[in-house]
Amino acid sequence: MSPLLEQLVEALRCLPGVGQKTAQRMAFHLLQRDRQGGRHLADALVAAVDGIGRCQQCRDLSESDICRTCANPQRDRSTLCIVETPVDVLALEQSTGYKGLYFVLMGRLSPLDGIGPSELGLDRLDARLKQGEVSELIIATNPTVEGEATAHYLAGMADDHKVAASRLAHGVPIGGELEYLDRNTLAHAFAGRQTLSGDM
Amino acid sequence: MSPLLEQLVEALRCLPGVGQKTAQRMAFHLLQRDRQGGRHLADALVAAVDGIGRCQQCRDLSESDICRTCANPQRDRSTLCIVETPVDVLALEQSTGYKGLYFVLMGRLSPLDGIGPSELGLDRLDARLKQGEVSELIIATNPTVEGEATAHYLAGMADDHKVAASRLAHGVPIGGELEYLDRNTLAHAFAGRQTLSGDM
Repeated sequence: MSPLLEQLVEALRCLPGVGQKTAQRMAFHLLQRDRQGGRHLADALVAAVDGIGRCQQCRDLSESDICRTCANPQRDRSTLCIVETPVDVLALEQSTGYKGLYFVLMGRLSPLDGIGPSELGLDRLDARLKQGEVSELIIATNPTVEGEATAHYLAGMADDHKVAASRLAHGVPIGGELEYLDRNTLAHAFAGRQTLSGDM
Repeated sequence: MSPLLEQLVEALRCLPGVGQKTAQRMAFHLLQRDRQGGRHLADALVAAVDGIGRCQQCRDLSESDICRTCANPQRDRSTLCIVETPVDVLALEQSTGYKGLYFVLMGRLSPLDGIGPSELGLDRLDARLKQGEVSELIIATNPTVEGEATAHYLAGMADDHKVAASRLAHGVPIGGELEYLDRNTLAHAFAGRQTLSGDM
């Protein structure tokens, strides 16, 4: 394998889920069938890495100091949805009609890894809650041990500032089957069952 | 999603096997955790796309006019192994002790797609066989319908020039592709190659 090709294969392995074989396949594909695509990808990578920083307000990935969501006057500034990563913002935007703002932790509390409140920008969140503009906190951290601990911490902060806090509902996924659900989720779904009105 | 991020996701989709969700995951991974890797990948892409052409002799991907294998005085110039793609050369190099030269078709005969002998550089192969340096042809096209047809055509050429021809031994699963074969099977198939008569 030529040195440049080897370098390309090695470089492609920085992508998540891409091992040696997949990287080889990608490199050969680009060189044999899609050189234009490869060049375009290089440009897009440089543009994104150089041009995308963090929003000063919500910590989401953004090209400007204030991201498009935070700058949008149409969004409801009284509701703040707290997520772990930018990809969660995307998922919520694509699947819900949420019209409030976000706050992106860029992680979760994990004392063993040295990730505490300040690493997650919670000092900034605290200052924002103090301003009194936010009246509801929607906590959308992942339902993992660390995500739950983070949610608990956030609920404490909301309480300190007398702000209503809610957590995404846990339960049976739509289209899922009870039979294949893990015990924890099923236990949550059972405990959190909701009253049905007759006119459902 | 910011425009630069959207462009990056779109650009990543040129990679084989990468759809919208995977591309998003890759883009977010690079931006959040591995910007250095992203920049490095961009450089490697440009270097490879600009620097890698085709070997004048064997049609393999190469940085120079004559690739390292063809230029290597240690290789046996009397044996020529014919493969469909550069990745097949790599697979054979990694799993067999083959010391001859290669000829890369960059495809297979496929009249319906307009791929005939001249698209595969078979005129050049013909000229090379005429020179008389090559005394054995190892036909390592994939055991697909088109690969078999190509092998048949190549066996005919070998016969015309009174050159011995062999085909990789059975052991390669029908319908499979060399690229994905485990090394052991590939080594066995290579070692157990069988003589072809012109009337195959």
